[in-house]
Amino acid sequence: MFVQLIKPEFEELIEAKDWVALKEVLNDVPSADIADMLLELPGDIAVVVFRLLKKPIAADVFAEMPSSKGVELLELFNKQQLSDVMVNLEPDEQVSILEELPGHLTQRVMNSIRPEDQRQLKKLLGYPEESVGRLMTPRYVKVKSDWTISRSMAHIRNFGETAETINVIYVVDETEHLIDDLRITHLILADPDDHIESLMDRSFEALSVYDDQEEAVKMLAKYDRVALPVVDSDGVLVGIVTADDVIDVAEEETTEDMQKMAGMEVLDDYYSQTTVFGMVKKRVRWLILLFVGQMLTVTAMSSYESVLASAVLLSVFIPMIISSGGNSGSQAATLIIRALATDDIDSSDWPKILKREVMSGLMLGSLIGIIGVVITFAWGVFQGEMMDQALFLTSLTIGLSLLGVILFGNLSGSMLPFILTKFNLDPAVTSAPFVATLVDVTGIIIYFSIAILLLSGTLL
Amino acid sequence: MFVQLIKPEFEELIEAKDWVALKEVLNDVPSADIADMLLELPGDIAVVVFRLLKKPIAADVFAEMPSSKGVELLELFNKQQLSDVMVNLEPDEQVSILEELPGHLTQRVMNSIRPEDQRQLKKLLGYPEESVGRLMTPRYVKVKSDWTISRSMAHIRNFGETAETINVIYVVDETEHLIDDLRITHLILADPDDHIESLMDRSFEALSVYDDQEEAVKMLAKYDRVALPVVDSDGVLVGIVTADDVIDVAEEETTEDMQKMAGMEVLDDYYSQTTVFGMVKKRVRWLILLFVGQMLTVTAMSSYESVLASAVLLSVFIPMIISSGGNSGSQAATLIIRALATDDIDSSDWPKILKREVMSGLMLGSLIGIIGVVITFAWGVFQGEMMDQALFLTSLTIGLSLLGVILFGNLSGSMLPFILTKFNLDPAVTSAPFVATLVDVTGIIIYFSIAILLLSGTLL
Repeated sequence: MFVQLIKPEFEELIEAKDWVALKEVLNDVPSADIADMLLELPGDIAVVVFRLLKKPIAADVFAEMPSSKGVELLELFNKQQLSDVMVNLEPDEQVSILEELPGHLTQRVMNSIRPEDQRQLKKLLGYPEESVGRLMTPRYVKVKSDWTISRSMAHIRNFGETAETINVIYVVDETEHLIDDLRITHLILADPDDHIESLMDRSFEALSVYDDQEEAVKMLAKYDRVALPVVDSDGVLVGIVTADDVIDVAEEETTEDMQKMAGMEVLDDYYSQTTVFGMVKKRVRWLILLFVGQMLTVTAMSSYESVLASAVLLSVFIPMIISSGGNSGSQAATLIIRALATDDIDSSDWPKILKREVMSGLMLGSLIGIIGVVITFAWGVFQGEMMDQALFLTSLTIGLSLLGVILFGNLSGSMLPFILTKFNLDPAVTSAPFVATLVDVTGIIIYFSIAILLLSGTLL
Repeated sequence: MFVQLIKPEFEELIEAKDWVALKEVLNDVPSADIADMLLELPGDIAVVVFRLLKKPIAADVFAEMPSSKGVELLELFNKQQLSDVMVNLEPDEQVSILEELPGHLTQRVMNSIRPEDQRQLKKLLGYPEESVGRLMTPRYVKVKSDWTISRSMAHIRNFGETAETINVIYVVDETEHLIDDLRITHLILADPDDHIESLMDRSFEALSVYDDQEEAVKMLAKYDRVALPVVDSDGVLVGIVTADDVIDVAEEETTEDMQKMAGMEVLDDYYSQTTVFGMVKKRVRWLILLFVGQMLTVTAMSSYESVLASAVLLSVFIPMIISSGGNSGSQAATLIIRALATDDIDSSDWPKILKREVMSGLMLGSLIGIIGVVITFAWGVFQGEMMDQALFLTSLTIGLSLLGVILFGNLSGSMLPFILTKFNLDPAVTSAPFVATLVDVTGIIIYFSIAILLLSGTLL
């Protein structure tokens, strides 16, 4: 990539403090790549490099950086620099910066923004976090239905430059209610003297300003649009959400889901921007919770201590059996969580899924169970330490336990996400470690119950 | 949502076979919602409903359906219906249908496409699977640098209707090499007698036709564009990739990563469209592999059978200890895999990550270890079954084992993705179950080694 070519030169010029040459070089580098390079510089030098950038470029570069680095730089900017950067940001970018600011900076940054933009910004910040309201931009082009095409085109020429997209033009009535969306191509192709009315079909898809941002991801993916209009509860057009902003949201949402599914809290920032201590904080609570949950396996095991004492051999297979249940549970949980997240299934589908997963649990469990019987029997013969009948019954115990544990793992992995949804919790909290812990306890009880049933009189 | 309102009416009309009224109703329903409703109908009825749709709508609906349902319908279409649907699809949609077709259908479907489109299609299908070439569309607008603005606008009016986006217009030289991209707003705002040349800055970002589709996701997210041009190895413009197509790719890639991370093979279709048997097939191989891997824990455990026989109590803590290592390993693996997938870190960062994860492993391990000592000591006192010194030493054994196992889990979880990358394998294959199995074996060895060291002479 281009940035790999420019990076050594960039670092050399910074080393040499040759700001004039650096300014020249930076002219040709895309903003996202400048952001990448600045990320690795200490704040005081990054601020100097910032001063070399043209104002709109500086804002672009700033918008591309992770928020923690942005905050660090804002602290170091002087008043003029602060204002240059903030004024040149898109409103949705200003919102996402302000969301992350520590208290003492908020007022300083707010003051650096034009008064008319401040009002708009305060309104955007009034919408709930993670809502479409925080993601949308008020920079779109709208026309009225009684305008002629030529008046509309003149309007687009005037206001299109600052719009995030002009692929779609929005039609509103006298009270600003959204009544249609039109592709720009239709306007370009139409007779200049025709009215907007003549192009309208009054059919459109819109997001609500209070919708979750995930809804924006789903709708844009579903309807294959480059942008979707956003309306308030009265149907008044208040902004648009563009596909490129939504890609970032989708990536973030997925990262959050994955972190929850791994049995930890969601990081506030990128992995690379999180300190070791910050990382430990996000991980430790779940680790402790799961650890305490494992005291149940200790209790379960100790209640079978007399069984263990009379047949130590049984304990040898415990990790194998409980982990097989955890594995099938982690597969099932991931499949269901992802299918729910992508709207492939919805929460009312649970009875159908239950039936499916009972079936696949039985199939997987039988298969692994049979393999288990064969392998443990072979292993026992190889070790040569048991009489034939006891060996056969032990193998059978292991096979049946595997069936039970894998079936139970499959059921709890697939049903827990639905149960969480029922209680309005995020299904992604059904983490692999959580399911595994649940299955560990149950697996021990299943294993010993079957062992007592089958082995009383022989091994026990 | 709208579809919820229309669905009962839709089902009633199908029940009553009232095709005339149904045709009326379907006129107002967005294609994606029709696709959702058709998905639940048997193929023979879905084909009838298809006949009621206007041709371009029918193609849209078809493009929205999962490929397995699409193939089912193609089998049932007559020649005219086949041609109506295929001809109205975008080239990138045609490609994604053809990719999935069973052999006997390919030729029939190919024949239904216009000869001039067939040539284009065969070219697109010549690019590797998962490459940008398969994702791009040849429907963009390009102009020459010596054209006037007014000539360019006339060109856009002629060809813009079929383009996927006209937000960006591409400038090529006489030999079709891409030399710049221009926002449509610049053209609209410019003097009609000016030349394209006067608007150009000759700075643009482009994808290569052989790039992996993931690269398209990353570039569009990074550079915040609604579309990116695609060039071949000579720099000739061959297509564009739009952000809305990329959202679908990003979602699919993520689903695939998650399935791999759950310890299974990637499904060929949506969860809801996969049969129970198909699902079992994708899951069973990894389950068997992990099960066989667990024979190592059996072997490890049995090599300590004499220790177990003299202190049955030790076996009681095994699930707790090994699962704690698995939990920290699953957290670390997920963090690293996702950070690699989103370009937050790259494969050369491993020494830095190793240092970080040794530190966080030590912190997490010490903390859980201390909690472990306290809890097991309290648990032992409560059970009242041990002499004081043995209880203290057992608690210490557990605490130290937890430290060791959590540290090891953290290291293997964070380093395995790098090792897989090194061997050109997908880091996402580092599944939680895989790490857990690895940690189970090591955990048992760590635990018993410490136990033998500390407890010889007391419990042992």
